[in-house]
Amino acid sequence: MYNIGVDLGGTNIAAGVVDETGQILLKSSISTRPERDYHEIIHDMAVLIYGLIDEGGYKLADIASIGIGCPGAVDKKRGKVIFASNLFWYHVPIQALLQDYLNLPVYLENDATVAGSAEYLFGACQGTENAITLTLGTGVGSGMILNGQLYSGSHGAGAHLGHMIVELDGIPCACGNKGCWEQYVSATALVREGQKAVKESPESLIANLAGHDFRKVTAKMVLDAAKEKDPAAVMIFERYIRYLAMGMITIINAFDPEVIAIGGGVSHAGDFLLQPLCEEVEKHIIYKDVAHARICLAQLGNDAGIIGAAMLGRINR
Amino acid sequence: MYNIGVDLGGTNIAAGVVDETGQILLKSSISTRPERDYHEIIHDMAVLIYGLIDEGGYKLADIASIGIGCPGAVDKKRGKVIFASNLFWYHVPIQALLQDYLNLPVYLENDATVAGSAEYLFGACQGTENAITLTLGTGVGSGMILNGQLYSGSHGAGAHLGHMIVELDGIPCACGNKGCWEQYVSATALVREGQKAVKESPESLIANLAGHDFRKVTAKMVLDAAKEKDPAAVMIFERYIRYLAMGMITIINAFDPEVIAIGGGVSHAGDFLLQPLCEEVEKHIIYKDVAHARICLAQLGNDAGIIGAAMLGRINR
Repeated sequence: MYNIGVDLGGTNIAAGVVDETGQILLKSSISTRPERDYHEIIHDMAVLIYGLIDEGGYKLADIASIGIGCPGAVDKKRGKVIFASNLFWYHVPIQALLQDYLNLPVYLENDATVAGSAEYLFGACQGTENAITLTLGTGVGSGMILNGQLYSGSHGAGAHLGHMIVELDGIPCACGNKGCWEQYVSATALVREGQKAVKESPESLIANLAGHDFRKVTAKMVLDAAKEKDPAAVMIFERYIRYLAMGMITIINAFDPEVIAIGGGVSHAGDFLLQPLCEEVEKHIIYKDVAHARICLAQLGNDAGIIGAAMLGRINR
Repeated sequence: MYNIGVDLGGTNIAAGVVDETGQILLKSSISTRPERDYHEIIHDMAVLIYGLIDEGGYKLADIASIGIGCPGAVDKKRGKVIFASNLFWYHVPIQALLQDYLNLPVYLENDATVAGSAEYLFGACQGTENAITLTLGTGVGSGMILNGQLYSGSHGAGAHLGHMIVELDGIPCACGNKGCWEQYVSATALVREGQKAVKESPESLIANLAGHDFRKVTAKMVLDAAKEKDPAAVMIFERYIRYLAMGMITIINAFDPEVIAIGGGVSHAGDFLLQPLCEEVEKHIIYKDVAHARICLAQLGNDAGIIGAAMLGRINR
């Protein structure tokens, strides 16, 4: 028996057939085009799933369940996406609608939570009881395993560490609050600060890499310029590391996990990110002679979403 | 069979005989005098426990276990207090030392964690799966129930929400970091700001209540003066509520609990605290139409420490 995992994003819907060892045997994806009616999107999701089953030569009876990693707030008991801003979805009964096409158990969970689950089962957080996976991308996602179980709170709105408030009256966030952590440590934050540098320091390497067009700045450009010791980029990067460490310390003090795994676009910087981060965190550990969380890179990349979603059928009661 | 709970504090050691319904049948306490050698303190703890057994007319066979709520970092598997600053303890094998006097199972856990457990079993957090109890006192303690289980992290150093960092380079904290939440929302924070007011606004009601001696300022004086609309006190209180709400929002976004119960000295302000706090939190809820944590007062007061510690023997495997 296999499980199918679906990673439902604002840009693409990716799905894969996953075996019990977490291997993706076959995967495929389509554009989400979220401006459409959600009935159309869920129809296309069913077509995508049937396509995988056909292409792999499976029978429907070979598939034990479908799991979906959804953005936003999820009511997993009632099978609904409560609210997902990047899909323009609001109380969408995705479980029932998908089951109209496919007579299989369908499980829902937050997308960052399933990515954390995948890292726990098959990636960087294996063998731990308490682990947090952070995704530093457009926003900051988080998936938590606590006491050996997936944790996503009481109302499907939890485990959003990107929305810890790290500065009273700080930088405005799309969520409506100010000073959310993701405004300081997402890839988007690096882009925003890089854009400022292009405008304010036209001599900077960032401006050069972006062809002096602030709209072309990427997080990678800022990181690459920092590697080259470009002063403007180094300033941005040092501030970035301070805020990243500040949140890590809060996570360590609040959760005391064994591992904090970092994924998402920014994590591609690898040791260039990890080394100063770990040094900065180390300075702020309260109990210096007690072991504390190991900070490392996530291992499954973008596949974590599909794998974790597929596994919902195996770990759900 | 009964359980004995011990609340080990820097000032007093309180212990009680607790039945399976969470009722304290008999309790007693002694001064800790933490300047002494820990062997003496643990000896006195054993005498306190034997005193309770004698006084209540119990036999040792009536007592199923001893549970101890300890300050600081606890290695519950090895039965040690790793570090407790207010006791000057450092790697103290309290479990083994107490068992030299008492041949009973001895369980350890962090003091704020057991208080949270008591509120979950018998107080404000009953019937929930995910609940956080905050103690706003000298510092800020936190006890967490997540997925229906006590949560205290991987290294005995976790669940310290008072040490979430809410301001980069903020107010220095005794833990060595800057900007810890407890520097803004503990009773001690109210005292510190009240003392400033006595010096800077000698006409304020706070100064009056303290007899113009800044050393006499208490948190209650600041709160009482705020109730009387004293301008200096109102300013302190409004800032206090803003930081308290800021941390609550972080807790809601990170944990999405069903209940956040507030105990400790500051909680005696009751509705005067709760009402503006809930209003301020409400403004910052991300998913306005999704249910979110109920914020309420803890119910068990100082007894929570004894009750929760006693129950360690019932909930431990």
